[in-house]
Amino acid sequence: MLRTHTCGELRIQNINETITLCGWVQGVRDKGALLWIDLRDRYGITQITVETDKTSGEIIDLARSLGREYVVKVTGIVSERYSKTDKIATGDVEIIPQSIEILNRSLTPPFTIEDETDGGDELRMKYRYLDLRRTEVRNKLQLRHQVAKATRNFLDAQDFIEVETPVLIKSTPEGARDFVVPSRMNEGQFYALPQSPQTFKQLLMVAGFDRYYQIVKCFRDEDLRADRQPEFTQIDCEMSFIEQEDILNMFEGLVKHLFEKVKGIKIDKLPRMTYHEAMESYGCDKPDTRFGMKFNYLKGNGVDLVGGKNFGVFDAAEAVIAINAKGCFNYTRKQLDELTEWVKDPKRGMGGLIYFRCENGSFKSSADKFYSTEDLQKWALACDATEGDLVLVLSGVKEKAQKAMGDLRLLMGERMGLRDKNKFSPLWVVDFPLLEFNEEDGRYYAMHHPFTSPKPEDIVLLESDPGAVRANAYDMVINGVEVGGGSIRIFNKELQSRMFDLLGFTKEEAQNQFGFLMNAFEYGAPPHGGLAFGFDRLCSLFGGSESIRDYIAFPKNNSGRDVMIDAPSVIESKQMKELGLK
Amino acid sequence: MLRTHTCGELRIQNINETITLCGWVQGVRDKGALLWIDLRDRYGITQITVETDKTSGEIIDLARSLGREYVVKVTGIVSERYSKTDKIATGDVEIIPQSIEILNRSLTPPFTIEDETDGGDELRMKYRYLDLRRTEVRNKLQLRHQVAKATRNFLDAQDFIEVETPVLIKSTPEGARDFVVPSRMNEGQFYALPQSPQTFKQLLMVAGFDRYYQIVKCFRDEDLRADRQPEFTQIDCEMSFIEQEDILNMFEGLVKHLFEKVKGIKIDKLPRMTYHEAMESYGCDKPDTRFGMKFNYLKGNGVDLVGGKNFGVFDAAEAVIAINAKGCFNYTRKQLDELTEWVKDPKRGMGGLIYFRCENGSFKSSADKFYSTEDLQKWALACDATEGDLVLVLSGVKEKAQKAMGDLRLLMGERMGLRDKNKFSPLWVVDFPLLEFNEEDGRYYAMHHPFTSPKPEDIVLLESDPGAVRANAYDMVINGVEVGGGSIRIFNKELQSRMFDLLGFTKEEAQNQFGFLMNAFEYGAPPHGGLAFGFDRLCSLFGGSESIRDYIAFPKNNSGRDVMIDAPSVIESKQMKELGLK
Repeated sequence: MLRTHTCGELRIQNINETITLCGWVQGVRDKGALLWIDLRDRYGITQITVETDKTSGEIIDLARSLGREYVVKVTGIVSERYSKTDKIATGDVEIIPQSIEILNRSLTPPFTIEDETDGGDELRMKYRYLDLRRTEVRNKLQLRHQVAKATRNFLDAQDFIEVETPVLIKSTPEGARDFVVPSRMNEGQFYALPQSPQTFKQLLMVAGFDRYYQIVKCFRDEDLRADRQPEFTQIDCEMSFIEQEDILNMFEGLVKHLFEKVKGIKIDKLPRMTYHEAMESYGCDKPDTRFGMKFNYLKGNGVDLVGGKNFGVFDAAEAVIAINAKGCFNYTRKQLDELTEWVKDPKRGMGGLIYFRCENGSFKSSADKFYSTEDLQKWALACDATEGDLVLVLSGVKEKAQKAMGDLRLLMGERMGLRDKNKFSPLWVVDFPLLEFNEEDGRYYAMHHPFTSPKPEDIVLLESDPGAVRANAYDMVINGVEVGGGSIRIFNKELQSRMFDLLGFTKEEAQNQFGFLMNAFEYGAPPHGGLAFGFDRLCSLFGGSESIRDYIAFPKNNSGRDVMIDAPSVIESKQMKELGLK
Repeated sequence: MLRTHTCGELRIQNINETITLCGWVQGVRDKGALLWIDLRDRYGITQITVETDKTSGEIIDLARSLGREYVVKVTGIVSERYSKTDKIATGDVEIIPQSIEILNRSLTPPFTIEDETDGGDELRMKYRYLDLRRTEVRNKLQLRHQVAKATRNFLDAQDFIEVETPVLIKSTPEGARDFVVPSRMNEGQFYALPQSPQTFKQLLMVAGFDRYYQIVKCFRDEDLRADRQPEFTQIDCEMSFIEQEDILNMFEGLVKHLFEKVKGIKIDKLPRMTYHEAMESYGCDKPDTRFGMKFNYLKGNGVDLVGGKNFGVFDAAEAVIAINAKGCFNYTRKQLDELTEWVKDPKRGMGGLIYFRCENGSFKSSADKFYSTEDLQKWALACDATEGDLVLVLSGVKEKAQKAMGDLRLLMGERMGLRDKNKFSPLWVVDFPLLEFNEEDGRYYAMHHPFTSPKPEDIVLLESDPGAVRANAYDMVINGVEVGGGSIRIFNKELQSRMFDLLGFTKEEAQNQFGFLMNAFEYGAPPHGGLAFGFDRLCSLFGGSESIRDYIAFPKNNSGRDVMIDAPSVIESKQMKELGLK
């Protein structure tokens, strides 16, 4: 080793030892009589102190020549610092150098390598190798490593076998768009990169592997949003001879383990919420339950506290939903107008926003014209609104109003400081519908995927009322983020075949795309189920960040480009020809 | 859980417990009064015993209806077996069933699910999910999991961080052929799948990550041989602030750890052998050192024991090399003729084979005409050949004769039973040449890759005698298999640039393909180096198998096809259009 210690290692007990450190020059401060070099590596920072009256001219000159990010090797004596600092772990000591060697020089970096940097996003992506030198960024990837390690330790201890499934597989038009790979040896044919190892893990269950997991790259050729990457990582798991309850318990155990090992947080038993309840109370299937502010129905679900008062908007509405923004009575007219515009945005499509305040023992509402104090009192009661509260009301077609109110609830939660990134509120959302009707092409799609099993008691509805069939499907939601999801699978060829029928596959299409799986079901498939966690997202959640990109060493930008290596790029025409592409 | 225990778990101390097992019917033996079902899962086999006079007719009928590979759930009482067996871990007990439930039926499998199966290769690949049910096959994948786990444990403990590098990268024409992925969002451009994360791990070192590893899929679009797969897995590692010695020690430590944890074998310090010595003594750079039979030079390397006797073949030869096949004096003429044909095969290209036997105190040689007993005595001395030995001699151009003799040595080792797959002989081969001259296109190629650093003392030869420059490159070889290799890298832009020049890159090509790396070297790259192990090969070696395919859950065949899922395949014309391919 070129060093005897790392830059994060030396303590008071090392005093008088002769040591050698290697690292990057974080900065040099030159006060004439004294000159300090902050030397940085992955493990920390150590101060090198050059006392100019006690040091050879050669070393002083060299020290003065050092630029930011130079790579140096310093041999010297560990000394007790005169002015100690507890800002860094090595703050009790400094190194009196006996020799300094420049291992490599550096141009001035295009942005500062500090926790707070002056580099913009694009610049930091282009020089990702410099961005990764920043402690904050490196810590995110160290966290990722820790999460992976804790995941493996837990699952290994539970007899799961990690099995690598292939990356070069077969394209299936169902679902998101595949990335494809032209085959040179089979001209005109293509491999696809997996969107998930779904069918392979099911085949492993057929193969009797019993408990499988894999931390695995998956791929989706979708138009990218801020929080999507063309390649992403899943913790993919599957078990045999289980029921839904077993899966929930096992992976609740995993997540508790991760919280404890990575965050030092003990998590209670995860609450369960049905999809129905999540939609009714939070307007979305991944409720942020760090805060309440649940929906109150002024109209709908058998209640009507708004009818017969000649307020046409509410009279025409299928549902009138209110949330109580506790303590927000002092929202200004301007703020409320802004909220109104926000809910009217085409993304939410609301006609407007009604509100009332509980202020000085009475109620002030934007619908005062139609509703008396007594009416409002009933509303307040329904919303548990008391002095100082602000109640926000949306109305319209139920599902649409729920979704808009779900968004508004999150916005208000954010503004009211109720979405503390250091607080974690995980839960299971269960009993998802099996199918989703798509108005555009007038057919049902699998809400989860075509291998999800219906609840046995709902199978009778498969033909008569497909939309009402509930699935043995579940999502784990933490802080409003779906971190994982899965289902109990169909393991019977006839039922799988019926599912493909329902989803509009012809027999031929089903056979062509999934024949190998249905064939496998002929040879003794065990009852099985599983789930997959979005690993990037789980890491970003643990790190308290919104963006998964920070937790990926070399992410792509929103055009799917790696701006550092400049990929994708054109390839040589010889390559094109070999692949039969030209 | 549908079961209380696994099929490998019950012991004598479980007697009288009521338990439930799930598994596959391995077989049913019906003796009328008694009927046995062998129930199998990943963990073992348990015998279910139906005593027909004590069991309900329903259960008996059901038991009689069970076919091979049916999936069943059995509840019953654990009983002590009358005739115990130590062939299976549960051999002391049997289950007296109270209920049997068929969870799924099975068609008759196309081959027997036994250690020795009647299925041919193609059939087993097509039904890989059934092949994987065979204990022998599953054990190989369990071994793979164990090797991965032990690898991670070791490297984690040494402060290595696992970092995932991207799969969608940039194509580089240097090296093997890339698989490419057309980009929909950047029409006409392509990603490439990585042949290794080489440049990314070097960038991680520039980023100060210090110790990196990854167990990672890599891809090569090569014409496949039996032991090659288009996708394969590496244990990829890199370290900073190290010298070659540190890398060798670290990864010698890893391999010792793996041998101990996975095989229970303690390995001594790994011997080191230079590339030169390996070629001189074994005729290849990955010598199988489980046995000796080293080369003896009858001519060449400053020796000449064959000249001046009018044997034109030897007189014309640059080198005459002999190996001593100890105790093989009784090789028949037929056997020796066959060996002669074997070395004359165009792959080896030898003109013939000379031999002599030490038999009854004298020597019998195929070159008796030219050489006296005294001559042969000298040869015998050089080869340490004594009574009962057979010495095989090849001659010709040195390098060619070395290679052919290397092959012959392995063949003889095999025949003489010296290549015991339960014996492990690891070593380091060091001091590889930096460059290889290619006669065909009259230029030098990097022997390892263009990022490998020359030995500092050889840098002066870079322009004058490039072929003589030795690299700081090393391979780990076990039993004649190169399981890993790596190098100390160039970390200086000028030297890297000179290397690209030497390899015939124009400045533009170098900048276009590796500009990002050379730019990174401008910003304080640390001294670094690393290596990669072929994970599939390491596993197959640990498992005592020649083929890596057995250690891959879903391998491709020699045409790069997955015959189970039938990939690659044609894709929809809509997909082709979106990708701008039609």
